[in-house]
Amino acid sequence: MKIKELGEFGLIERITRLLPPYSWEVVVGVGDDVAVLNTPQDHYLLLTCDIQVEGSHFLPDTPPRLLGRKAAAVNLSDIGAKGGEPLHFLASLALKPETPVDWVEEFYRGLREEAQTFGADIIGGNLSSTRGPQVLDIFLMGRVEKERLLLRRGARPGDVVMVTGELGNAHGGLLILTRDQLGEALPPEARKPLLDAFLTPTPRVKEGRAIASTGRATAMLDISDGLAQDLLHICQASEVGARIWADRIPISPALEKLARTLQVPSWPLALEGGEDYELCFTVPRTHAREVSQKVEKATGTRVTAIGEILASPRERILVTPQGEEIPLTPRGWNHFREEKK
Amino acid sequence: MKIKELGEFGLIERITRLLPPYSWEVVVGVGDDVAVLNTPQDHYLLLTCDIQVEGSHFLPDTPPRLLGRKAAAVNLSDIGAKGGEPLHFLASLALKPETPVDWVEEFYRGLREEAQTFGADIIGGNLSSTRGPQVLDIFLMGRVEKERLLLRRGARPGDVVMVTGELGNAHGGLLILTRDQLGEALPPEARKPLLDAFLTPTPRVKEGRAIASTGRATAMLDISDGLAQDLLHICQASEVGARIWADRIPISPALEKLARTLQVPSWPLALEGGEDYELCFTVPRTHAREVSQKVEKATGTRVTAIGEILASPRERILVTPQGEEIPLTPRGWNHFREEKK
Repeated sequence: MKIKELGEFGLIERITRLLPPYSWEVVVGVGDDVAVLNTPQDHYLLLTCDIQVEGSHFLPDTPPRLLGRKAAAVNLSDIGAKGGEPLHFLASLALKPETPVDWVEEFYRGLREEAQTFGADIIGGNLSSTRGPQVLDIFLMGRVEKERLLLRRGARPGDVVMVTGELGNAHGGLLILTRDQLGEALPPEARKPLLDAFLTPTPRVKEGRAIASTGRATAMLDISDGLAQDLLHICQASEVGARIWADRIPISPALEKLARTLQVPSWPLALEGGEDYELCFTVPRTHAREVSQKVEKATGTRVTAIGEILASPRERILVTPQGEEIPLTPRGWNHFREEKK
Repeated sequence: MKIKELGEFGLIERITRLLPPYSWEVVVGVGDDVAVLNTPQDHYLLLTCDIQVEGSHFLPDTPPRLLGRKAAAVNLSDIGAKGGEPLHFLASLALKPETPVDWVEEFYRGLREEAQTFGADIIGGNLSSTRGPQVLDIFLMGRVEKERLLLRRGARPGDVVMVTGELGNAHGGLLILTRDQLGEALPPEARKPLLDAFLTPTPRVKEGRAIASTGRATAMLDISDGLAQDLLHICQASEVGARIWADRIPISPALEKLARTLQVPSWPLALEGGEDYELCFTVPRTHAREVSQKVEKATGTRVTAIGEILASPRERILVTPQGEEIPLTPRGWNHFREEKK
């Protein structure tokens, strides 16, 4: 069997099965975005990495400074989604020999800017040559106070499903970059926020810390593969179901404009589009208002309740704007699949 | 300027210059093989990564289990060279969609075997698709007792330069794999140790621990780019010079046979060939015999004195078997350069 037939998540499952059991020190191992390690101190260590491949994750003509920022951001987002504090980056780059030195310096400037913004530094890495697409693999270590760690597992029936910010903007940006003339059809005030969301996403580290510090959230992750798919990761890890209302998903005026231009409804773009790097988290109903108010006050970022956790893992429901209940399926991004499922 | 004109080490220098100063927590940052972090406990944390690119670091038809072992080994070697103990691996893989699932499982089996041999585990990573050469980027965290940390800096005039094992075997293996009919010209008992050295190098973790635990060594690194180049890294970091005797470099009977077949002297193969993953370290003359005996007794691995550290950083001398003193130049592996310097 080829890996494109099995898909990313099937492959991860196979890999997980052939690994030996972990020692007590490993709180979370292979299968999550972030590995969590116990320490004798009052915090856990967090380790994550994200590989970006030219042609798969970024277009060859993307300005390298933006690539550096985004490569940092996707890792910062993973640490933020655990409620953690980012600390130290390593950068492994496979570069073509004819790449300009300026390109590499600009990439590192972007990486440095984004690292500094969130109080992290760059302490190592590895450089190699490649004849093929360039590859940028960024590793980030962080830490989180033990009582603040949030995982995919932990959501409970009755919990409210909440998200930060607006969804689908990054997907809109990607569409503008890859579909001829779509950009020109949009006014600049709609184009810019969508492109920015795709090219320089803001990792929700502050928001993740604020959510974790309320002590009320039960599960959390960052939305990198699309809300539908990532929420199902929470359901799977927590052994619960969920009901989401399409018309409660926060959507920007810019994405609404794009959807009108494309003559499609906006909510599927927001539900299925990847790379938003917003946070999705769950909170017991009695604390939902308190948490959203605290987080909005501390960070200025909007928090929206979009659904609820259900007891049965088989109930994964999307309520359309017309009030119809349909299955919530993982239509998000899955590496190796040639077609969306 | 293109990076192939500047070379790997020039590029690292440029990158180092544009990074802000480190906090007290970072003992060693960008520029070394391993980042070293302070902790409030009695050990330092060690972080390293090594990226392996198909076509650049490994041949496409290499058995994936051997690739997994080697990808682990090169990182284990880096941790061992700091005197450290390996702990946790992360694996970032960019794979072609048509790669067989078996291939990936075999790669992880190799990684797991090598990790387990040295008491480490695999706790995370990232999978991505690529259309180009496959890329295997392995990250390893380790730790070392504070009093045992060994760095590139620290060598002092009068110190003896020592190496573990035999040098040049991996280079011999690479020659067999890449030069037509060379393998057939060699007897199997010469072919096998050279191929093994290239395909499944043994990381000198035990040896690194043994050397560090004597408390006598002053500097250490692993020989990944060739003895000539790597020893010059010690000289540069320690601000000293060195004199090496070509006929003291430990060379295997197998490499001698290969050299005779190629009708070349064997010592340049051992001096300049990369990927040996033996350790090169320095010890004050008065303790040299004590250290080599202790390490040989503890590990069964041969330790050989091949030269001495000189006071002047300008004196980098190679004594040929004919007794001639010539400049010791970095003829080892340098990514991005198209020709050896």
